[in-house]
Amino acid sequence: MKVSLNALTATEIADGIVSGKFSAEAVTRACIDRIDEREETVGAWAFFDPDLALEQARSVDAAAKKGVIAGVPVGIKDIIDTQDMPTGMGSALYEDHQPLIDATCVARLKAAGAVIMGKTVTCEFAGLTAGKTTNPHDPSRTPGGSSSGSSAAVSDNMAPVALGTQTGGSIIRPSSYCGIIGFKPSFDTLSLKGVFPAAESLDTLGLHARSLDDIELILSALLQREHKKTPGLTRPPVVGLCKTWMWDDAEPESRAAVETTLERLKDAGAGVRELELPEEFEWLGDVRGIINCRERASVMAGEWANGKHQLSDQLQRTVQQGLDTSYDEYLDAIYLMETCRARMNQTFEGCDFLLTPAVDGEAPIGLKETGSPQFQALWTMLHVPTITLPTYRAPSGMPVGVQLVAPHRADRSLMAIARWVLEVCEI
Amino acid sequence: MKVSLNALTATEIADGIVSGKFSAEAVTRACIDRIDEREETVGAWAFFDPDLALEQARSVDAAAKKGVIAGVPVGIKDIIDTQDMPTGMGSALYEDHQPLIDATCVARLKAAGAVIMGKTVTCEFAGLTAGKTTNPHDPSRTPGGSSSGSSAAVSDNMAPVALGTQTGGSIIRPSSYCGIIGFKPSFDTLSLKGVFPAAESLDTLGLHARSLDDIELILSALLQREHKKTPGLTRPPVVGLCKTWMWDDAEPESRAAVETTLERLKDAGAGVRELELPEEFEWLGDVRGIINCRERASVMAGEWANGKHQLSDQLQRTVQQGLDTSYDEYLDAIYLMETCRARMNQTFEGCDFLLTPAVDGEAPIGLKETGSPQFQALWTMLHVPTITLPTYRAPSGMPVGVQLVAPHRADRSLMAIARWVLEVCEI
Repeated sequence: MKVSLNALTATEIADGIVSGKFSAEAVTRACIDRIDEREETVGAWAFFDPDLALEQARSVDAAAKKGVIAGVPVGIKDIIDTQDMPTGMGSALYEDHQPLIDATCVARLKAAGAVIMGKTVTCEFAGLTAGKTTNPHDPSRTPGGSSSGSSAAVSDNMAPVALGTQTGGSIIRPSSYCGIIGFKPSFDTLSLKGVFPAAESLDTLGLHARSLDDIELILSALLQREHKKTPGLTRPPVVGLCKTWMWDDAEPESRAAVETTLERLKDAGAGVRELELPEEFEWLGDVRGIINCRERASVMAGEWANGKHQLSDQLQRTVQQGLDTSYDEYLDAIYLMETCRARMNQTFEGCDFLLTPAVDGEAPIGLKETGSPQFQALWTMLHVPTITLPTYRAPSGMPVGVQLVAPHRADRSLMAIARWVLEVCEI
Repeated sequence: MKVSLNALTATEIADGIVSGKFSAEAVTRACIDRIDEREETVGAWAFFDPDLALEQARSVDAAAKKGVIAGVPVGIKDIIDTQDMPTGMGSALYEDHQPLIDATCVARLKAAGAVIMGKTVTCEFAGLTAGKTTNPHDPSRTPGGSSSGSSAAVSDNMAPVALGTQTGGSIIRPSSYCGIIGFKPSFDTLSLKGVFPAAESLDTLGLHARSLDDIELILSALLQREHKKTPGLTRPPVVGLCKTWMWDDAEPESRAAVETTLERLKDAGAGVRELELPEEFEWLGDVRGIINCRERASVMAGEWANGKHQLSDQLQRTVQQGLDTSYDEYLDAIYLMETCRARMNQTFEGCDFLLTPAVDGEAPIGLKETGSPQFQALWTMLHVPTITLPTYRAPSGMPVGVQLVAPHRADRSLMAIARWVLEVCEI
């Protein structure tokens, strides 16, 4: 059976275009057809202009020298500036807003040959108030948020990869709910120039994809790093099973995802240690709201002054809570978070990575709420790289990801481990 | 002798306006008169519209409830977004660029009652290529950069305070050259929402002022922190004299600034320890260029793609150097910098703050170069708070500041120490 071009990975697309097997235009057309067919149900796009996408594809085809991601269609979360597409932040306040210059990530993707397919739906200002997107596996369920459209578009084969951002759980949660790979690099890895902030001490740019090769390929373009596949592991890794204090909050599906994945890793030769996080890490759950709300109030100061009433009630409450939080209380929360970060590396002692739930459970039914961020936000606060892999399907048929966590800046070793895990566990 | 209103501190202005001693309009008019008189020589402003300033002042006067900085004229570095004034970044690429929304810092200043006087001249994208500003103490000399206009405007009594940013030495150096106080808070203290980045791991928003009270007052507005003056020291502090490995690069004027200041502190009862920085800190000087150039190339990706040839030759070289630097080389530099940051606190052992040169010497003659950033950039890389105080005047009559450094996030204790130092040493 011939796989449609829109279902190929970014790596396969770039290879096929460079080798002349098919054109960028044909790939883009296949994605456009898929969007035409499914968008009414999925609602992944905040802005989509097929002509603009085709124009880019044709200029990739015409170029003598092809970039490393020549002709790869990419979805861009709609809080990221694009100079030829409006950038709406999921808010009426920025309706039809047209940035002057591409964000760094967009400029780098373009320079490497990407076709920017359009802007994907984001929750309002990358927060909690959902947009129109549904879960491609079941339109009665949330796709998760805030990178809702990016996750849904990649899951539904509308584009092989998409950019997302995570401040709490906005990459990992929707990726897990939609059954794809979501990668949040170490804090500070990818430039945030041109990305609307949510909470400046936490905001991280990352990726949604259906293949680990694609994550590495797109990263090489974003980082302007020579593209080479991470070498595989030379021995099975030692897994640090990290249930966290939130384990009992997890639904059976999420516990089953971790447990069945662990069994398969053991069967493949992995060592296992069960890890307890230091006690003070539990406080991170308590101070997260303090940090989030106060930093949110800070970045929204201009919007608050100009258009408070155009913000959702939920976002207004968040900002107000931030405004009501004293600076000293905030600073105490920051100290605690920094103390935990400094202690993070030693929690890995004796194991190569942590295996931990990605989400509370399968994507909840309903489109208003986007699910709980607690299992993702912990790691965002710790600035460590995390990836979710689709290794499990619940009895309902819904995907439930697991989460792999590595020490700060050990992004490459996380990638090698993820490759091993996915080979062993792919469903 | 009556002091003109434009020569008052922000604290005196806010007090006078709240108590009805004079109007915001009168203060703004006094600053406008000063600008009219001196701007042709000093060239501090990239955008200045007296009517717009007066309009703000009149609405402060009309308001029943006055903010904590009611009627205080503030200069805004022209890489910071303002929704009612163009924001030019010191570059032809952004000529007449009009942002949609105020940066967080501007919104908070306005909410607290400030009068935004205008946009102050910045070096091109807060880098090294100078604008039109001269040193108010001697128009044949550079004011320093990149916050050239902010420093000159405050020094020349055109406004009591101004916002600046520092990535290498862009607050401390021009403040020192212009004989005013410059304060770079701990990294991450003030929101950068709406501030054009230069190098994201280093960029810090800070202040230029003529009084320590003003620094604390403006900070309280920016941080939405209750305004209370930091209590004074209960005992004379222990000074860590930190000549650094660059001491021999310093001109006699800069060494004299440190030495005479130290003598006066000793006379006032301060203890003194001479401190050696750990050897690996010297490498920071070597890796600074790597980090700066690569991060600069990153944040400028969109501008590079759209208008490379509108950038100065100097900036083009910097970006090109960044593009030619491998990711691995960059990451090694980041590791080294983070290692030094982690070791920084222990270098303070036994002393309350570091006393160190602020600059290589007095402001160099000529307007093309803005002076060497080496004595400032070290501390920027370490993320620690630093302040320059005008405690010395060279035989030429030019001011030469000294620099005080405190541990990360010890900004408040730095302020208390600076207050003690300035009381003992004011010239």
